[in-house]
Amino acid sequence: MRYKCTVMYDGTTFHGFQAQDGIKTIQGEIERALLIINKKPVTIHPSGRTDTGVHAIGQVFHFDSEIDMGEENMRNAINSRIDKAIYLTKVEKVSEEFHARFNAKSKEYHYLIDFGKYNPFNRNYRYYCRFRNVDLKLFKNALSVFVGEHDFRSFTKNQKKENTVRIINSIDFEEEGTLIKIKFIGEGFLHNQIRILVAMALEVGRGKLSIDELKAIMEAKNRLLAPKIAPPNGLYLYKVNY
Amino acid sequence: MRYKCTVMYDGTTFHGFQAQDGIKTIQGEIERALLIINKKPVTIHPSGRTDTGVHAIGQVFHFDSEIDMGEENMRNAINSRIDKAIYLTKVEKVSEEFHARFNAKSKEYHYLIDFGKYNPFNRNYRYYCRFRNVDLKLFKNALSVFVGEHDFRSFTKNQKKENTVRIINSIDFEEEGTLIKIKFIGEGFLHNQIRILVAMALEVGRGKLSIDELKAIMEAKNRLLAPKIAPPNGLYLYKVNY
Repeated sequence: MRYKCTVMYDGTTFHGFQAQDGIKTIQGEIERALLIINKKPVTIHPSGRTDTGVHAIGQVFHFDSEIDMGEENMRNAINSRIDKAIYLTKVEKVSEEFHARFNAKSKEYHYLIDFGKYNPFNRNYRYYCRFRNVDLKLFKNALSVFVGEHDFRSFTKNQKKENTVRIINSIDFEEEGTLIKIKFIGEGFLHNQIRILVAMALEVGRGKLSIDELKAIMEAKNRLLAPKIAPPNGLYLYKVNY
Repeated sequence: MRYKCTVMYDGTTFHGFQAQDGIKTIQGEIERALLIINKKPVTIHPSGRTDTGVHAIGQVFHFDSEIDMGEENMRNAINSRIDKAIYLTKVEKVSEEFHARFNAKSKEYHYLIDFGKYNPFNRNYRYYCRFRNVDLKLFKNALSVFVGEHDFRSFTKNQKKENTVRIINSIDFEEEGTLIKIKFIGEGFLHNQIRILVAMALEVGRGKLSIDELKAIMEAKNRLLAPKIAPPNGLYLYKVNY
């Protein structure tokens, strides 16, 4: 029996998604609950990992279990046994052919950046940008450079990866006062890619870099030229499309 | 030199306001910063304490220091040295006659209760009420019983207090979807009073208690008859009026 689960989490107090012995992770927490329900170890398979401090509104994972339970019952069984920072919004029984990672067609990530006054209640949920001289139009134009198919080798932590070409379908903006929500949709993203793109576009917005220089950095395929990274607490895995 | 400070805090990770050796508290955190700035110990005097998990939007405290610094400089000096869950929104130099506790004319507290779907991002910032059969009109009517001058002995943790008569000036409601914000304004509140009032009004909303029975419990001046308490994470000290 294969179960597909959609899950929200506040990543603040977790050391990322991937299970690690003796460390509090999203996967570790969910597998701990599944061990109780299943009475033997169960491995969950996410659409992809998220880093420490990164949040999810619609992360997806699947797991197999011999236990045949109603979808809502399974959802309640897991929700009642996990840390309250994690919450399954949907559980579906799917065919054995479904795979949360391999079947993902595209992903939507949101990055929240706030140029306004600090509010301690939001500190873990958006990036309070302390730069006061950011030209928002330039910032957005810089981000738009990344739409389309590009080799993002300059903008990822994992330089060892052979293929760093990715397609970003769209980058859209939603504003609410001083808060800007940046919506990235793409087939897949490299490790730290979105956080590096946001930080480098900010350099353009601050006048530290021109759009042409940003394009040249992308062409150079060298992370040393893009050494900035925006904090994880502004990033949300919003949706996985299948 | 006396400084009056207005402070916001996310109380989630603190063991309340009051300083306690070896325990993370709001007061302890602020006094630690003031020790660095002042180069000798400084005691702060709040308008009143808040409990573990209770938040503040506009808590006020004062302290004395020989250091004569501009108001904004002092604010920045403290903010840059404290836990990011605490944030001073205002610092004012005041006369030696000002006292944050003794001069407080009234206080406004907000209690946030949500009858809708759980969202892990709000879990520390509102009370997700799991009762599904609450009559909101009855709930509000029950709360209105408390407006005016009453002996709230049945509704406080601290039964030893000699005088438990308090005046609640008003209780107002603001609704946004399934979220209800309850605004309490009064000259002063007893320990745990608001959380007990909310929980007991919920008992009325659930049909477990009539309004007359609630009034009788108030008359009885006996906490054993009011054994419920709403969680701290929905409570905010919103404003102190001088």
